[in-house]
Amino acid sequence: MADIPIRFGIIGCAEIARKVSRAIQLAPNATVSAVASRSFDKAANFAKANGFPPDTKIYGSYESLLDDPDIDAVYLPLPTSLHLKWAVLTAQKKKHLLTEKPVALSVAEFDQILKACEENGVQIMDGTMWVHNPRTYKMKQFLNDKEKFGQLRTVNSCFTFFADPDFLKNDIRVKPDLDALGALGDAGWYGIRSILWAADYELPKTVTVFRNPVLNEAGVLLECGASLLWADGKIATFHCSFLSNLTMNLTAIGTLGTLHLTDFIIPYQEHQASYTTSTKPGFNELVTGWVQLPSEHTVTVDLPQEACMVREFASLVANIKKNGAQPDKKWPTISRKTQLVLDAVKASMEKGFQPVEIVG
Amino acid sequence: MADIPIRFGIIGCAEIARKVSRAIQLAPNATVSAVASRSFDKAANFAKANGFPPDTKIYGSYESLLDDPDIDAVYLPLPTSLHLKWAVLTAQKKKHLLTEKPVALSVAEFDQILKACEENGVQIMDGTMWVHNPRTYKMKQFLNDKEKFGQLRTVNSCFTFFADPDFLKNDIRVKPDLDALGALGDAGWYGIRSILWAADYELPKTVTVFRNPVLNEAGVLLECGASLLWADGKIATFHCSFLSNLTMNLTAIGTLGTLHLTDFIIPYQEHQASYTTSTKPGFNELVTGWVQLPSEHTVTVDLPQEACMVREFASLVANIKKNGAQPDKKWPTISRKTQLVLDAVKASMEKGFQPVEIVG
Repeated sequence: MADIPIRFGIIGCAEIARKVSRAIQLAPNATVSAVASRSFDKAANFAKANGFPPDTKIYGSYESLLDDPDIDAVYLPLPTSLHLKWAVLTAQKKKHLLTEKPVALSVAEFDQILKACEENGVQIMDGTMWVHNPRTYKMKQFLNDKEKFGQLRTVNSCFTFFADPDFLKNDIRVKPDLDALGALGDAGWYGIRSILWAADYELPKTVTVFRNPVLNEAGVLLECGASLLWADGKIATFHCSFLSNLTMNLTAIGTLGTLHLTDFIIPYQEHQASYTTSTKPGFNELVTGWVQLPSEHTVTVDLPQEACMVREFASLVANIKKNGAQPDKKWPTISRKTQLVLDAVKASMEKGFQPVEIVG
Repeated sequence: MADIPIRFGIIGCAEIARKVSRAIQLAPNATVSAVASRSFDKAANFAKANGFPPDTKIYGSYESLLDDPDIDAVYLPLPTSLHLKWAVLTAQKKKHLLTEKPVALSVAEFDQILKACEENGVQIMDGTMWVHNPRTYKMKQFLNDKEKFGQLRTVNSCFTFFADPDFLKNDIRVKPDLDALGALGDAGWYGIRSILWAADYELPKTVTVFRNPVLNEAGVLLECGASLLWADGKIATFHCSFLSNLTMNLTAIGTLGTLHLTDFIIPYQEHQASYTTSTKPGFNELVTGWVQLPSEHTVTVDLPQEACMVREFASLVANIKKNGAQPDKKWPTISRKTQLVLDAVKASMEKGFQPVEIVG
């Protein structure tokens, strides 16, 4: 039984499901077993177009996939506003849940999903891929190195991309009834996660949104940013936008070292990923140049980061299924903290850009 | 007469004066003619230690240097709190003024200095070196390129360095009676200038300081940051600190392009300097990698940036002295705008972290 892969059902044929279904096939401990759409033909075409195994089951409704006893886990790439209903139902059907981010529209919704997962003993993980890249673990080693990095003092994270007119008119991420969190949910999620990651998932004390959020006519965020403060004086800022050129920079500065990279969410290349570190650099005598340049590190990525994510998730599921283990709490805890900060950003906007305390 | 260099007198033997006096000697149109300290011996030792020309005049008081009719221009590296007195006196003695930054402790002081310079027909320029680097002009060409960069949307600028205990106890930059602006004046000046530079020196509408300024026991800023907003929706943030590892990142993001560099104030190397640009990058079909990577550009720097600064200043002075031109207004206008934003950061702190409107 140790060799039997975790069988995934995919609910919804979103673009992102193409990438993740490939990852499921690449992961050594997972396989695509079924795909569902509200239209049978759409699901069938999706399976064909993406080279799913010939025996992949095709379902013309999400419910029928959830009723399939031969599915272990569901990958849920639906618009965020549909997560609550389908995530809860997935859990109730005893399927483990790998869900796209943001997990929910709010922590209140998140907690309903989490409760359903806990009550039904199923694993939940969100689809944030970059944290599973081997590069991320290497970078974390640097951040944890008290002699090379010291104590974290500040983080700046930026994820922007320039959406074309069609996106800004028609994409689900600008629709209040689909992805109501807009750029905050789609892009800001990563910035917030990267900050929490750098801070060892210690929640900030307060979140204060910048005074320039851009919303579309329907009230969906197209751009925003915020500062996050911790009791020990750490500060982090993030900026997310659908209105600026594609940029994904992350800088974490400690007392003694700096971590920096410019492709933190999606590495420039699939099979290798780089970052720079510096430790106690200084200047030459006349301060006309640096005496210790930041050094670049390149990590070989044998398995693409999204496949690493699937492998990690499937391994947790296998441990539950085969060994009777309890669902892992680390990943949902991280997801919930991310969602908490998202809520605080929204609350700060509603409070007229005042700071909002985070209660963990 | 066209070949006679502008004769500099240096008032004060600060560390930074070593770098700038070398720059004066490197600049083709300038020469070090005199150096003054409150102690004759200190000035004499400084001249010797830094290889000044043998005929350099040594003065044991600032006043005596200012009375020397054979000095065209003064370089003023004194602590900021002494600028008002000595800058005004320099102007009144009809000497042109190259002054260290921050120019003054406030715009009110700045305006007194400017008034004295205008009334006496002398040039004023502040000692911000990086804007004179040939790299900076190349980068500006990119920012001005509507097809490659589009419209500026956001800037993030960070300058931090980790000050040792001796610095934090004894350096003039932590003393309320010397450099009362602390990290804001010393490091934040550059961040603010870089933001204004990227924004074509258009002043922001509001400045809001982050809620975590760190002050020492004497009330001098050791760390702070702020967000700057423009009426057209542009946003910029800067962070400056004496408490974090040496980092000097600048990122400017437009609708179509991104400019990025990590050594914007002092290039890693003196004789060449790099930056990266990207224009409309995107992802491959499955969004597992980028299809157009940012490209790195390296600029050869024949003359170090501080010598470029001296050359520019001396050229303006020569134009006044030899051609009867009026003092240039571009540089003092830029300096004043930087000082205006510094004032707004301080005002935002005093107003309990509320936004402060900038009145130009």
